[in-house]
Amino acid sequence: MTEPPDLAHLGPVEMFTPRFDDSLQFFTEIMGMEIEAQNGSSTYLRGWGDYQRWSLKLTASDTSGMGVLGLRAWNPDALARLVSAVEATGLGEGWTDGDLGRGDGYRFRDPDGHLFELYYDVERYDPPEQLRPSLKNVPQRFTGRGCAVKRLDHVNLLAADVRANRDFCVDTLGYRLYERIELDDGSETGAWMSVTTAAHELIYTKDAYNANGRLHHVAYWVDTREECLRAADIWLDAGIEIEAAPSKHAIAQGFFLYGLEPGGNRVEVTSGGRMLYAPDEPPVVWTEAERAKGQAWGVKTIESFHTYGTPPVPAPVSA
Amino acid sequence: MTEPPDLAHLGPVEMFTPRFDDSLQFFTEIMGMEIEAQNGSSTYLRGWGDYQRWSLKLTASDTSGMGVLGLRAWNPDALARLVSAVEATGLGEGWTDGDLGRGDGYRFRDPDGHLFELYYDVERYDPPEQLRPSLKNVPQRFTGRGCAVKRLDHVNLLAADVRANRDFCVDTLGYRLYERIELDDGSETGAWMSVTTAAHELIYTKDAYNANGRLHHVAYWVDTREECLRAADIWLDAGIEIEAAPSKHAIAQGFFLYGLEPGGNRVEVTSGGRMLYAPDEPPVVWTEAERAKGQAWGVKTIESFHTYGTPPVPAPVSA
Amino acid sequence: MTEPPDLAHLGPVEMFTPRFDDSLQFFTEIMGMEIEAQNGSSTYLRGWGDYQRWSLKLTASDTSGMGVLGLRAWNPDALARLVSAVEATGLGEGWTDGDLGRGDGYRFRDPDGHLFELYYDVERYDPPEQLRPSLKNVPQRFTGRGCAVKRLDHVNLLAADVRANRDFCVDTLGYRLYERIELDDGSETGAWMSVTTAAHELIYTKDAYNANGRLHHVAYWVDTREECLRAADIWLDAGIEIEAAPSKHAIAQGFFLYGLEPGGNRVEVTSGGRMLYAPDEPPVVWTEAERAKGQAWGVKTIESFHTYGTPPVPAPVSA
Amino acid sequence: MTEPPDLAHLGPVEMFTPRFDDSLQFFTEIMGMEIEAQNGSSTYLRGWGDYQRWSLKLTASDTSGMGVLGLRAWNPDALARLVSAVEATGLGEGWTDGDLGRGDGYRFRDPDGHLFELYYDVERYDPPEQLRPSLKNVPQRFTGRGCAVKRLDHVNLLAADVRANRDFCVDTLGYRLYERIELDDGSETGAWMSVTTAAHELIYTKDAYNANGRLHHVAYWVDTREECLRAADIWLDAGIEIEAAPSKHAIAQGFFLYGLEPGGNRVEVTSGGRMLYAPDEPPVVWTEAERAKGQAWGVKTIESFHTYGTPPVPAPVSA
Repeated sequence: MTEPPDLAHLGPVEMFTPRFDDSLQFFTEIMGMEIEAQNGSSTYLRGWGDYQRWSLKLTASDTSGMGVLGLRAWNPDALARLVSAVEATGLGEGWTDGDLGRGDGYRFRDPDGHLFELYYDVERYDPPEQLRPSLKNVPQRFTGRGCAVKRLDHVNLLAADVRANRDFCVDTLGYRLYERIELDDGSETGAWMSVTTAAHELIYTKDAYNANGRLHHVAYWVDTREECLRAADIWLDAGIEIEAAPSKHAIAQGFFLYGLEPGGNRVEVTSGGRMLYAPDEPPVVWTEAERAKGQAWGVKTIESFHTYGTPPVPAPVSA
Repeated sequence: MTEPPDLAHLGPVEMFTPRFDDSLQFFTEIMGMEIEAQNGSSTYLRGWGDYQRWSLKLTASDTSGMGVLGLRAWNPDALARLVSAVEATGLGEGWTDGDLGRGDGYRFRDPDGHLFELYYDVERYDPPEQLRPSLKNVPQRFTGRGCAVKRLDHVNLLAADVRANRDFCVDTLGYRLYERIELDDGSETGAWMSVTTAAHELIYTKDAYNANGRLHHVAYWVDTREECLRAADIWLDAGIEIEAAPSKHAIAQGFFLYGLEPGGNRVEVTSGGRMLYAPDEPPVVWTEAERAKGQAWGVKTIESFHTYGTPPVPAPVSA
Repeated sequence: MTEPPDLAHLGPVEMFTPRFDDSLQFFTEIMGMEIEAQNGSSTYLRGWGDYQRWSLKLTASDTSGMGVLGLRAWNPDALARLVSAVEATGLGEGWTDGDLGRGDGYRFRDPDGHLFELYYDVERYDPPEQLRPSLKNVPQRFTGRGCAVKRLDHVNLLAADVRANRDFCVDTLGYRLYERIELDDGSETGAWMSVTTAAHELIYTKDAYNANGRLHHVAYWVDTREECLRAADIWLDAGIEIEAAPSKHAIAQGFFLYGLEPGGNRVEVTSGGRMLYAPDEPPVVWTEAERAKGQAWGVKTIESFHTYGTPPVPAPVSA
Repeated sequence: MTEPPDLAHLGPVEMFTPRFDDSLQFFTEIMGMEIEAQNGSSTYLRGWGDYQRWSLKLTASDTSGMGVLGLRAWNPDALARLVSAVEATGLGEGWTDGDLGRGDGYRFRDPDGHLFELYYDVERYDPPEQLRPSLKNVPQRFTGRGCAVKRLDHVNLLAADVRANRDFCVDTLGYRLYERIELDDGSETGAWMSVTTAAHELIYTKDAYNANGRLHHVAYWVDTREECLRAADIWLDAGIEIEAAPSKHAIAQGFFLYGLEPGGNRVEVTSGGRMLYAPDEPPVVWTEAERAKGQAWGVKTIESFHTYGTPPVPAPVSA
């Protein structure tokens, strides 16, 4: 019997970049995000629709990849239950005093080594005068700069063992598994999970190098497919490498645009996708043959999509 | 401390029509829905994205309005909790043996007299060969007939006392209140509620005639605003009365098209709208002055929107 | 027997503004145009898709309204024919040495007194490095700033006598009349004309004050209706007065958003509309009763749309 | 010095199919066209926005490919001039008595052997009651069936010698050359031409088999890119082979969806694209290196796009 999840949603996310200034310019000028705060080597950024103060913490580093991925609990009791469950797995790392505009958090690593932080207390965004919206049910003014992304949507993590991480998320964190890929040899190469009706919030896909703790991509939401197409025009002219032109995923049905930000991390502009209202929605299992058909309209998945992640790893490690 | 709702989602809905054949043609040919079954004076209809067998039960009647509105519980335990809570209010009417493809249900009336049915067990839709989709994470083939609506999205009920019904939904059913209108005299004329991240599933607005148990509108979802615009073209040429041309709501930010189906019931084609990820999202309270500004882009709300509902009532009753 | 027009297209246009700095900020930051040059009290602006160096000359003035409206001839011979035809009407004012990036022009006034300039020679836009596009069949980089309008689309002029001006444009300039409004009393209150397959380039509508030489609006093109909707969001939050929210015109079928730039001139963001391929397309004549139905989807035309123009006139003059 | 073209536009087009019933079902049920008339082995079809009675003549045949391609002259004098010019080339075949709803026509073959018919007189479409639109500036009711294509947009012909055919079209028919591909060896493999501001009406691309008289594709217009995306969903579920999923062309900037109708002919659903207002627009010349970059957003052109045409040819002929 499925219970409503104790998690409310995913995010914010921290991203490392070895080219901080260029990455920052990408997220502000091209993606159209606002700078909410700066602190040491990190800058806190937000989309116009993020209800928290920030959804992306961009941190200067000697390499790329993901820092900490936040997970907000539904309420303090749910947070306590989640922490207990994580502690029982031995993957817990302990409490922190949170981050900008965020209360105490409990850190842990998934089986693959990605760092997460469970939390509940947050400050809601309070826009300065020049970013105050006309309608009070919107967090921030819509300025329409560049891609003008709205909010963090989902994160895709690479893992050496997709199933182990998926099991952890479902069993310990209460994620709902909506879709997964199972190859002919029985191995699982992708798992799409969510704690809401959105088709995916947290995704694991197979790390081709069997490396650990790497990032596949961070996805920002726009409200329409037309804005994905428009984003492609902006990226093209801004010299941003388009890895995968706008099209529709077979899995989860989301519309996508993929490319690499200057620091090397893969970024997606996304819209649409399934909404799963059934509380007992059975997971869709995609076979190797079905995946070979490509994306929804037959576009072949670009090879780098199966191999590239951040941070870079020196050489493939055999399984 | 907010808890995750025991309800999973709203629907299906039953609609009465005094012009059954014309209404049926509207929902199949204009709205593009499929007939799933027929039984006596009722026909069961579905959008291509409904996961249950049907989302609309169209029933021949001597008048218009809403029949039974379903509410699906998250699981059997949640259903039991909901039934107990409703029974405690004295509004319960008892168990039924369900409906087509649906298990036992518990009926009750909201304070205004609208009939609801709580349930958990349902059959998932299994498409016949000619409606089998190419991608297995979609319930049904997309045929693209007419407006080609995807699924039931929300229902708006008229009530003589909005606040009483809103309180019942929040306190007894666990709805989350996302937005409401409070006039200068302190009265509440609208309440937008949901049990998911969608901006609204169940809405109450003030019945101008102080009548009871009436319907404001039933809304069907399309994935894009362009499909709302396209639907307006179809309605125009099909002779369907457009009550409110496509535009964007201030409240909940949804894109809309409103009109009357042949039986007289108001129907909406909707897309977009806020997604509320915060588990502690505070309700937005709109004032009389703010509402006087019209919809999001300043379109004045058409007068009939404040007065028309189904079934028709002979004459206004003073409060 | 209709001949192909000697005119190639309409534009550029000069606009006067009594609030130059605010108007300039509107066209650059909100509409997303680029500054191509500045000269004295004028600034030359362009959309990313304008093939000429500029399509809007914004000129500081003590009032609002239109300055000179350019009309480009198909070739030098066509220019000569047009000049002869205009001279024969007695409305000619003589040759000028052109304007920025434009060769000699011949000025005249329409019967209502609006100033036009016929020309042929122009410089094509050569973008600076930072505005060079990735694809060489596009004039300029798409930066996606604000509404990011593409190019000048059409101009609507108010006239005390619509028919006289329409006749002049058709008979002397070779315009094709695509649609017009004829009231029950036989008067003509609107005429939509073009020299291309686009539904309108030059429009005359009735000046409610019987004033002369006034401007109704200048329209800039975006490629999609979604960009009109998006522009409305930007205007709303930027505090630009939305006069008419996005919807579809009955006449010419164009999608629109109307508002006032800070100088008081009405500006439209437009997309779509009829394409008239028939060389013998008969003009559509709209009656008073048909116009009373409002726009395509029934939206009533806002009253100010029938009365407001620039520059302002002190008081209505009786006909 | 460029003169306005004597041609008004391209079309209608005749298409041969060896699977007539399936092809007819494709064009009516999937593409959403209406049957205007039937005559022997041919059925005349129209999009809702075609001003003539029909734009596609579907003819049962033992193979696929194009029959006659119509070209409408601006007026009778222009027709006479065009006929004289064609006769002077020796490619003329003489007068016919036209086709359904069309007056006398003059047939000729382009250098590659494709059959054309010049004409001027046509009947405008007069819809039957059930297809009468609400707005009188639209030819036909919008029923929204399937892809609901609006009108014939352009035709792409394969030719063994692209340049010879392009020269003929420009020199003899007065086409304007907007874009072309010139390989490193100096050969021309594509030419995009138009007689209007639309980016292309008649296209020649290189026949990989050096065959003659073959068809690359026929393109039908929809007003929005969203309708192209929607068409892809419809094709996918209807089992229509999608050859190239929706994306944006680098050349001409049009949005596309390509697939094969049951008879084997390639069909495109298209929207958008450049509008060329300059009467002296210089042709854009694309190099081999530029073309290697793929479509606008980097999508690689599918190999079959360079090789497949109709009717099929038994084996490649060396050049």
